[in-house]
Amino acid sequence: MSESATPSFPKHLLDFRDWNRRQVESLLETAQMMQEVLARPVKKVPALTGFTVATVFFEPSTRTRISFELAARRMSADVVSFSGATSSTTKGETYRDTLRTLDQMGIDAYILRTDAAGVPHQAHRWLHKPVINAGDGWRAHPTQALLDAFTLREKLGSLEGKKIAIVGDILHSRVARSNAELLPMLGATVVACGPATLLPGSLPGATLTTSLREALYEADAVMVLRLQKERMEKGLLPSLPEYIAAYQVNRERLGWAKPQAPLLHPGPMNRDVELEGTLADSAQSLVERQVANGQAVRMAVLYHVLVGKS
Amino acid sequence: MSESATPSFPKHLLDFRDWNRRQVESLLETAQMMQEVLARPVKKVPALTGFTVATVFFEPSTRTRISFELAARRMSADVVSFSGATSSTTKGETYRDTLRTLDQMGIDAYILRTDAAGVPHQAHRWLHKPVINAGDGWRAHPTQALLDAFTLREKLGSLEGKKIAIVGDILHSRVARSNAELLPMLGATVVACGPATLLPGSLPGATLTTSLREALYEADAVMVLRLQKERMEKGLLPSLPEYIAAYQVNRERLGWAKPQAPLLHPGPMNRDVELEGTLADSAQSLVERQVANGQAVRMAVLYHVLVGKS
Amino acid sequence: MSESATPSFPKHLLDFRDWNRRQVESLLETAQMMQEVLARPVKKVPALTGFTVATVFFEPSTRTRISFELAARRMSADVVSFSGATSSTTKGETYRDTLRTLDQMGIDAYILRTDAAGVPHQAHRWLHKPVINAGDGWRAHPTQALLDAFTLREKLGSLEGKKIAIVGDILHSRVARSNAELLPMLGATVVACGPATLLPGSLPGATLTTSLREALYEADAVMVLRLQKERMEKGLLPSLPEYIAAYQVNRERLGWAKPQAPLLHPGPMNRDVELEGTLADSAQSLVERQVANGQAVRMAVLYHVLVGKS
Repeated sequence: MSESATPSFPKHLLDFRDWNRRQVESLLETAQMMQEVLARPVKKVPALTGFTVATVFFEPSTRTRISFELAARRMSADVVSFSGATSSTTKGETYRDTLRTLDQMGIDAYILRTDAAGVPHQAHRWLHKPVINAGDGWRAHPTQALLDAFTLREKLGSLEGKKIAIVGDILHSRVARSNAELLPMLGATVVACGPATLLPGSLPGATLTTSLREALYEADAVMVLRLQKERMEKGLLPSLPEYIAAYQVNRERLGWAKPQAPLLHPGPMNRDVELEGTLADSAQSLVERQVANGQAVRMAVLYHVLVGKS
Repeated sequence: MSESATPSFPKHLLDFRDWNRRQVESLLETAQMMQEVLARPVKKVPALTGFTVATVFFEPSTRTRISFELAARRMSADVVSFSGATSSTTKGETYRDTLRTLDQMGIDAYILRTDAAGVPHQAHRWLHKPVINAGDGWRAHPTQALLDAFTLREKLGSLEGKKIAIVGDILHSRVARSNAELLPMLGATVVACGPATLLPGSLPGATLTTSLREALYEADAVMVLRLQKERMEKGLLPSLPEYIAAYQVNRERLGWAKPQAPLLHPGPMNRDVELEGTLADSAQSLVERQVANGQAVRMAVLYHVLVGKS
Repeated sequence: MSESATPSFPKHLLDFRDWNRRQVESLLETAQMMQEVLARPVKKVPALTGFTVATVFFEPSTRTRISFELAARRMSADVVSFSGATSSTTKGETYRDTLRTLDQMGIDAYILRTDAAGVPHQAHRWLHKPVINAGDGWRAHPTQALLDAFTLREKLGSLEGKKIAIVGDILHSRVARSNAELLPMLGATVVACGPATLLPGSLPGATLTTSLREALYEADAVMVLRLQKERMEKGLLPSLPEYIAAYQVNRERLGWAKPQAPLLHPGPMNRDVELEGTLADSAQSLVERQVANGQAVRMAVLYHVLVGKS
């Protein structure tokens, strides 16, 4: 990918391997313009009139689906929703046949979530149209990382040289993986922290530590991940009280980070598990701002893959 | 609330405590205009262009959700649907976090149904936008009461001095509670009737009786409620044959009411349980008219909370 | 039905008993025009602006529902979706009450799928608006047959004198029944083939055989049906290996048909069960073309029942 004055864009967003810093920054600038649209009383532009976008969720997620649906409709696209739970995949149809079927119906772009890693990459080869990864297994969730980056820049300015701590179940987190891929591209340092059983062997783009103090020390921002309580049943977790004792981000521990270091969480939160509940509502919390920015970022992504320069 | 010449309106509809008679009557007049829109071949007006309305149903109800969705779309609003059954509430997210998340996505009004009473009132405090209660537990279902009032006035004219009988499981009925709140505000007398185990200790706005004959005697209209058969399993009900023998509204008993007294039912009906099946299709039945009027009333409510005078 | 120069059209599509050849051919010509719309970058026409269409699926089928939804929206209709799985039918409401309720909400046309045969015919009597059968039990699936006919004509030209083989579980197939009704109306001969336990006593419009060789011999086209594996559990099927050994359409057996005989399948496929998997992706396969044509055919059907000459 060249970094020319007028960047071209990949016609998909699977992860950030096909994107360079210039393209990402241009996309975040577009998101800034979308933010301005969203501040208007009528939050609607005709940019995607005549396009039909499909949300194809083989793993349920109402908040992410609605965020994408609204983003698409606010650009005047039509949206159809395919949900694996009620689909013929239960009758043995493969992902491929489902997607090729939708493709024949003239869908213009796919927003795809799957519990299996790598399906969006395969989908990109099967289909003739843009694919946006809305989360694939533990692998990637690039629009979440983009909205995190957008939110961090909005608060901190440039991310150059900034230390971002990510705390929680790193092993099973596509949010951690995508942020570890994206944030260093924008100049940040990422430290990922959790109990040893919830850390991967390595995480490209991040330093790993089991020490919460080390992770939070002088951090410019702290991102807390949702603890999937289901993991505990499988013996991957210490008991909940042990987890909370050692890794819950609470007011005292947040003091290890820089003063007023912003606090992020991809949601939905388990209040008083991974995060002291009242912190989520404090002035340091950007949790709600993340959701609002998710709209703007997803509008920008749809715009870039569908009508952006190529 | 003053009763000035140009009434202002609450920017929400939780129950009728914040509404006065003048406001309700003005809303019913707006519904009358919406009724005329619905009689046109193209049942669509641009009144809510650019607004996005969310139906947020933590308790499933297809007919109510579709009624609201159509009402919103016929005023050219965009609609997104959030259903608790497939949502992250099952992952432990609180109502509050779900609603605050949606709020950050720029929703303009919420149509909220929950199995827990009081959630719409809480939602109204958490959110910055209008909340319409589409049913909360046993507490309130104000748009149902409004469509009942609209339907009754359409048939009977003024409700001043009219006797309305409500028959069935009063204890668990938000429809009964909302009608007992609204109909007296419009001048009617409400008598609520059911077996002792299905009557509350008191019902503000209504007289309670276990005598069906007393309830129906000289009634101007009869509203029959759905019998939740599940209640029986919990020992709250006599056997179904006993209930039918004592409380089913049939042709003979309907004769106790005034001649041609209209018959209402909020649906869905258990034919030949709470109501003799053929009565539902008789000339006295307004059951289908209630549904049609629900469209007009919900359009009026959306209009008043979103763009009405304040 | 007269076959005048300007054919009138039934205001419903339940099966083909109320349709004659001229009407079907006129509908397929309209589908050809819709095909041209779908080839444009903006696949949208204003033909059904102001109409509201309901998909009412008492039996889940994402692909068919989405195909109809897209067809309706591409003609600028509004669409509401009612799904039996989350509806009050589970609370005992009858089909009739559900449909009459929707009718009162001012729906302009119904796209109805049910697991019980005959419900669309009943619905047509209960409702005041067009009903399109999207599959009722084992009885009929007329839009599937129309898209099959459209696809076959696109490939073979006129169907006059053509031999079409249908292979698989004929007994439980509404696709087989509707094709056996429609294709002979367009001049074709239909041979339906499967093991004796999966053949009906008779199939109007088709010759029945248990010999795959006889069915495929000199066939102009081969339609393979999905094998419902659930049937086996009920003892209706031989074992899967036995079925595959005797009835799977594979490359060798397809050679019994005419050279390059097109291969159809209504989807979703069980690859390597009823059909050798690679055949589905071969040049002979029209499986994806069927899906694309489904859009055009369903747009044409909606157009004819809603605004076509009557």
